[in-house]
Amino acid sequence: MKNFISVNDVDNVSKLINDTLEIKKQPLKYRELGKDKTLGLFFFNPSLRTRISTHKAARNLGMDVIVLNADKDNWGLEFEEAAVMNGKKAEHIKEAAAVIGKYFDITGIRSFPTLTEKETDEDDTVIKQFMKYSGKPMISLESATLHPLQSLADMVTIYENWNFNKKPKVVLTWAPHIKPIPHSVANSFSEWANKIECEFVITHPKGLELNSLYTGNAKVVYEQDKALKDADFVYVKNWSLYNDYGKFYNGGYDWMIDKKKLELTNNAKIMHCLPVRRNVELSDYALDSENSIVIKEAENRVFAAQAVLKNILDDLNG
Amino acid sequence: MKNFISVNDVDNVSKLINDTLEIKKQPLKYRELGKDKTLGLFFFNPSLRTRISTHKAARNLGMDVIVLNADKDNWGLEFEEAAVMNGKKAEHIKEAAAVIGKYFDITGIRSFPTLTEKETDEDDTVIKQFMKYSGKPMISLESATLHPLQSLADMVTIYENWNFNKKPKVVLTWAPHIKPIPHSVANSFSEWANKIECEFVITHPKGLELNSLYTGNAKVVYEQDKALKDADFVYVKNWSLYNDYGKFYNGGYDWMIDKKKLELTNNAKIMHCLPVRRNVELSDYALDSENSIVIKEAENRVFAAQAVLKNILDDLNG
Amino acid sequence: MKNFISVNDVDNVSKLINDTLEIKKQPLKYRELGKDKTLGLFFFNPSLRTRISTHKAARNLGMDVIVLNADKDNWGLEFEEAAVMNGKKAEHIKEAAAVIGKYFDITGIRSFPTLTEKETDEDDTVIKQFMKYSGKPMISLESATLHPLQSLADMVTIYENWNFNKKPKVVLTWAPHIKPIPHSVANSFSEWANKIECEFVITHPKGLELNSLYTGNAKVVYEQDKALKDADFVYVKNWSLYNDYGKFYNGGYDWMIDKKKLELTNNAKIMHCLPVRRNVELSDYALDSENSIVIKEAENRVFAAQAVLKNILDDLNG
Repeated sequence: MKNFISVNDVDNVSKLINDTLEIKKQPLKYRELGKDKTLGLFFFNPSLRTRISTHKAARNLGMDVIVLNADKDNWGLEFEEAAVMNGKKAEHIKEAAAVIGKYFDITGIRSFPTLTEKETDEDDTVIKQFMKYSGKPMISLESATLHPLQSLADMVTIYENWNFNKKPKVVLTWAPHIKPIPHSVANSFSEWANKIECEFVITHPKGLELNSLYTGNAKVVYEQDKALKDADFVYVKNWSLYNDYGKFYNGGYDWMIDKKKLELTNNAKIMHCLPVRRNVELSDYALDSENSIVIKEAENRVFAAQAVLKNILDDLNG
Repeated sequence: MKNFISVNDVDNVSKLINDTLEIKKQPLKYRELGKDKTLGLFFFNPSLRTRISTHKAARNLGMDVIVLNADKDNWGLEFEEAAVMNGKKAEHIKEAAAVIGKYFDITGIRSFPTLTEKETDEDDTVIKQFMKYSGKPMISLESATLHPLQSLADMVTIYENWNFNKKPKVVLTWAPHIKPIPHSVANSFSEWANKIECEFVITHPKGLELNSLYTGNAKVVYEQDKALKDADFVYVKNWSLYNDYGKFYNGGYDWMIDKKKLELTNNAKIMHCLPVRRNVELSDYALDSENSIVIKEAENRVFAAQAVLKNILDDLNG
Repeated sequence: MKNFISVNDVDNVSKLINDTLEIKKQPLKYRELGKDKTLGLFFFNPSLRTRISTHKAARNLGMDVIVLNADKDNWGLEFEEAAVMNGKKAEHIKEAAAVIGKYFDITGIRSFPTLTEKETDEDDTVIKQFMKYSGKPMISLESATLHPLQSLADMVTIYENWNFNKKPKVVLTWAPHIKPIPHSVANSFSEWANKIECEFVITHPKGLELNSLYTGNAKVVYEQDKALKDADFVYVKNWSLYNDYGKFYNGGYDWMIDKKKLELTNNAKIMHCLPVRRNVELSDYALDSENSIVIKEAENRVFAAQAVLKNILDDLNG
């Protein structure tokens, strides 16, 4: 693997999932693989799980890690060609990325969407320009549109919790929130779910359609109860409006996943990327039930990041 | 040792002090002990000495360290059962701590008191809930009520600087400051001093009584001059009012420790946890005198943290 | 070497440049040298290149690294003798530096000038007082007056890109900017250029003279075109007024280095410390030309820092 910013960077999704499960059995098996290699982690936005799990994954492979909180105010980057840089932006991506490429063997970048400028967000400018000008492998720590490290961990958690006597029914359900939330986790989950053996259904109130670039041929059902019927996995996630881009959907408060809704399912496992707002997105009952696998997803973030780094290191080491 | 949030987590205080002194002789003797173990350090409040000394202690034992500045504004945690999380708090302690427990073998938490909500502070909610829900060993990097890593270093510094031909007289004296200061260092010093062989005396203006939960049977003397008489160690520390909780005590400016006061003592060693406000808490004379052991206390923070981590690792390694 | 805060700390500049070039060939040759040694990096101001390159340099030598962003607001240090510390400053340099000296084997400090208090800036109080009271080796990560790690990397980059059939002509040219910029890079470059075999010329608009303490006998030419004639290396840098201390020079906008100006030179290599404002300091043409070696300078920061740390470690190891 050269880069990891989308499922499309992965040749064989099943193999990557299996790699992750293998690494989980012996996390320190490849501790020499990343020796003398350095991973740089740049956070243009706050991070907890992604930061810790990716750091630990790299250390498990013997890599050194250097973390930078690159507050957008402190390190304003210019992305325009031929810009006359007489404003707030102090460095052009051409220099910034080229230097990063000299210091790090692999670089991870987190850069959230604006939720106001649709076109800029969809271009995923920050990570794509870093990739273009650094000349070194780049991994997404959540971009404006996708969060592939989360999605790989999610797929792995589905595999672990399924016996595969039949294709599982996986439902991504929109859930209410208190403020506008990026689409990246939902986009990314859809993109990956479309690549594994499952019956994938997306449910949300009308108007909350996601970008079809990521949802592809996934079945969309507007009645949550109908969608949840016989579900084996329920992935709960809020997102803001995509069509009226980035706006808060003020409604759907009855879409919270609770006991009654879970009873419609086939004793479904409950998933969420965290952080989760209890009794807004999911009820205490749902999160505290034995069917909740949200902590397992978070735990699998380490091994997912490790499988990704291992694949890139294998490629670097020729 | 399972956790380290109070002296009560320690079976044998003398042994822990001796462990620390042994480690100081050969800091790298146990460099393999923490191999493949990760220490997470979460700072909800700023830190300098604690952060560096604990980091270095862990590295001396071969542990990996991941540090997070978890600004309360950025990572607002909900601690209430059954809370409807539709406000500023983005994650419940149940998820936050459970995830932390998956990523780290040992976790350190710093969380200062509010100084406005007495009950909340006394409950030491943050560190106790992390301990409850993470299922992994937890060490206090200074909580709302106690600062045991500081106190262990203080006790070790007393041991090092005493010949034990007789029990030393140890005096904890309140000193003036310019703003309300937490009780944790004073509480914790009292708790630990009560466990070692010494004549322990606390002196402060009337009204500045500490929580008796921590001071226990320590002798309280309201006249500073009388308390200092024949003292072998003088531990200088400001704290705010405990009875009128968290309020600034505007007075006692003549309680600063200076040359004249030190002449009352038995050539006492001078102690302070740092940072110290010169010519407010202690005079330049006191801090610059040969009897000042404040830098030694700071240096011993490394070995104290190392003894604590070693004891927890011994327990983890079975 | 004991410390590294100026070129004057270096016995033999040519040897240090050669050490750097040797290290660049085999960056991991001395990976055992810094074993069990810890480098502390304190940033009182933001940093990207210096922070990453110095961190990586230390790791290449096997040192541990602990980084602290010591925001001046959070850790207000008192530098005055006999100060009554009843204001905003919470710790005196005497304690702060002494503690640092106990925790770290080598310490790096970044502390920019105020650009308003000339005398304070010229004294370089922060780094010099840390050096005085810590009793341990100290390296400048850019002080109020100098940036020697940058300058060493610059000299190394000149050596690498010169065949030495004749002494190169090296021109430091002032360039326009949008706000007042410290003198440290320009001072430091001058100090170092004066120590190597080259014809060194400084050019800037009248009134922008640098402190002669650093420029020494360097030739100053006020007409940029004349200065650039036959130049082999053009080092581009803005600085604020030194005589009317710290003020912004509102003018000289035609001093930007572009195609036309480069044609005056002897096919000169183009240098800049970065970050650079495109089409303000240098045109896109200049930065994108094959003659630009700005990324090589940034890359050489790692090896320069490594040569400095190696020399100090050699001294520490006796």
